[in-house]
Amino acid sequence: MSARAGIVVTGTEVLTGRVQDRNGPWLADRLLELGVELGHITLCGDRPTDIEAQLRFLADQGVDLIITSGGLGPTADDMTVEVVSRFCGRELVLDAGLEATIADIVTRLMARFPGVDPGAVIAANRKQALVPAGAVILDPVGTAPGVVVPGSPTVVVLPGPPRELQPMWEAAAATDELQAAIAGRVRYQQETIRMFGVPESGLADTLRDAEKLVAGFDRLEITTCLRRGELEIVTRYEPQDAQAYAGLMDVLRDRHTHELFSTDGAFVDDQVADLLTGRSIATAESCTAGLLAARLTERAGSSAYVAGGVVAYSNKGKTELLGVDAALIARHGAVSEPVAEAMAAGALRRFGADTAVAITGIAGPGGGSTDKPVGTVCFSVALADGTGITRTTTLPGDRSDVRERSTTVAMHLLRRALTGQG
Amino acid sequence: MSARAGIVVTGTEVLTGRVQDRNGPWLADRLLELGVELGHITLCGDRPTDIEAQLRFLADQGVDLIITSGGLGPTADDMTVEVVSRFCGRELVLDAGLEATIADIVTRLMARFPGVDPGAVIAANRKQALVPAGAVILDPVGTAPGVVVPGSPTVVVLPGPPRELQPMWEAAAATDELQAAIAGRVRYQQETIRMFGVPESGLADTLRDAEKLVAGFDRLEITTCLRRGELEIVTRYEPQDAQAYAGLMDVLRDRHTHELFSTDGAFVDDQVADLLTGRSIATAESCTAGLLAARLTERAGSSAYVAGGVVAYSNKGKTELLGVDAALIARHGAVSEPVAEAMAAGALRRFGADTAVAITGIAGPGGGSTDKPVGTVCFSVALADGTGITRTTTLPGDRSDVRERSTTVAMHLLRRALTGQG
Repeated sequence: MSARAGIVVTGTEVLTGRVQDRNGPWLADRLLELGVELGHITLCGDRPTDIEAQLRFLADQGVDLIITSGGLGPTADDMTVEVVSRFCGRELVLDAGLEATIADIVTRLMARFPGVDPGAVIAANRKQALVPAGAVILDPVGTAPGVVVPGSPTVVVLPGPPRELQPMWEAAAATDELQAAIAGRVRYQQETIRMFGVPESGLADTLRDAEKLVAGFDRLEITTCLRRGELEIVTRYEPQDAQAYAGLMDVLRDRHTHELFSTDGAFVDDQVADLLTGRSIATAESCTAGLLAARLTERAGSSAYVAGGVVAYSNKGKTELLGVDAALIARHGAVSEPVAEAMAAGALRRFGADTAVAITGIAGPGGGSTDKPVGTVCFSVALADGTGITRTTTLPGDRSDVRERSTTVAMHLLRRALTGQG
Repeated sequence: MSARAGIVVTGTEVLTGRVQDRNGPWLADRLLELGVELGHITLCGDRPTDIEAQLRFLADQGVDLIITSGGLGPTADDMTVEVVSRFCGRELVLDAGLEATIADIVTRLMARFPGVDPGAVIAANRKQALVPAGAVILDPVGTAPGVVVPGSPTVVVLPGPPRELQPMWEAAAATDELQAAIAGRVRYQQETIRMFGVPESGLADTLRDAEKLVAGFDRLEITTCLRRGELEIVTRYEPQDAQAYAGLMDVLRDRHTHELFSTDGAFVDDQVADLLTGRSIATAESCTAGLLAARLTERAGSSAYVAGGVVAYSNKGKTELLGVDAALIARHGAVSEPVAEAMAAGALRRFGADTAVAITGIAGPGGGSTDKPVGTVCFSVALADGTGITRTTTLPGDRSDVRERSTTVAMHLLRRALTGQG
């Protein structure tokens, strides 16, 4: 027995790609945690016929649960609740209590916009108080309420803004109606490991061998993907197949000793964050222009070990703020290992840090040459004890790829330097 | 008459949200440019039955064109071509020329990975040379070829990595087979405008009035969405309805004079980039820790006007690198308008720039207080002529929302300062 779900993401702005959907992936994670198998995510515009066709498709696939996102706003192009009611064969009824709640929220919200007449806005929001008869109402986090419509499939209707959808999903998941719909769920094991420096084909080769070497290999659901220059391998299996997974891990460890950097799903960011505990790091960035500093501070609490950084985009910035010798730049060029090392040393000094990373490269599209093509990036990690790593790599892709990948390479060099693998 | 398309994005890593799909949105834009109406985007894992069900669903919706992305790799979980062949009722045939091309590419690629045996990898890639009989082959950009399978619907099979998919789509679009499939396309007008500082409900109110005031309003397909704190309004219409759009614009200009900042779809980033031509800008960032500098340098050629920046995450960084008076921080706190102004002044001096932006705030989750809750961010824009803008706002959302939105607010303050709207 198992429970299967589908997700319907509505909104012309999402379908046409003007806004990237964050709800499908986020809901997928939640379903996985619950042990509900996600079969399909479908996106369509604000067209009733398309929304209804997708609901029908998912129902035909035999899913136990459908979650919709978007189309709950006050504008005329928002009509998900209406479509879902029809699909579930329930009439729309005005919920007086809900109408009052919404009026309340809107009045408070409008205080921030003196130019707008609350009365008109409340009228605009009235349609948001219409819900399918017999549905469970999910209180609004923004102005739009959600609903859980029991039945098979059970349909959960959530708003589009992630900040509203996420807490409202938690509320939906707690309802008896939803729990009943996913009663058949199976709790799978899922393990994630990560490698850096292995091509996907090389891994494919290894997995084909593992298939012969590992008993029960066929009961492991393995998916691999290249992500930000790293290889992510996710394996799903039922608890009784733990032995097979252990066997797979032995093969992977044996074949990719140096490339396998995470066996518990931890990102290099997590590992670096741990390694930086009690330390003080400074960055010196040219082509990445702050992306590495921003990445190092994504985590709450990073202020404990991130001192700061310099974005030295111009040569003047390199000399003035990082004390890089202008003659050194003249001799080797701004994109060179000596300059990367001088930038790292400057960052150490400037911030009184014990760890520094410098990045200088050619992100493109312009600025490349035959000996230093677009994608050439020099890295230098310097530690207060005088140890460190300096490397030059040529990264593939466009300007934003090169900039983003550079931060990944820097994180790995940082990890190696801090674990003494310089 | 018209042409309609659907997109099937495959890959368990995308379905489960471990990787964000970039292909659906990108292909959606290309179809829009072509005048092809996109009905649905569907995502599923690497399961043949799910992929086939989605192809069937789209065919049942009567689309003229289906584009698939992903599942062309060498690993066993990549099987899109096989499924599409079956769906189109064509047998898989090994293309000898293609096999040679792939072997070639792999051999060159493997040179970068000394540890790996090319022979094994070439064998691993052989399955990528199997194509549906009668299909047009799209040469690989990575190692995976694509195909265009004529018929109704015509199916275009593309690889998952955006860097490979994008040029291969251009090749597919140029084929007679694809042009024949979308012969019925209609070229719509599409106009995009942007507002900053208007709630979505306020706009809904305006649009309801426009419905009464503007002749032909009902022939305009208007979609609105809140994006990075800005309101984006996209209107699609057939060329003969240009008058109606002009009428809508009059109403919007009249109602939202100060909030309407873009009538040609330009992003605030484009406008700021233009305004910075011939100038030199420096940043001083605390809570955003480099995100603004990174945003200012996203565009090629930004090195002409971006001098650099300081990520002053610690107070020491603020005093040492930006010359902010420690007493000022002690008196007003690091998150205060006086400190933001001192940071901006410091950035101007340090980089000898004529334009500077400083951001200091509380991104959370910790660090908030009753008078300065999480989301409190102080901004200061300083120009060499002594003019500038200093503002404090309280931004909603989690740590990453606050950090990202702060860069949007900063861009708008920059735009205002540079257009003398201080």
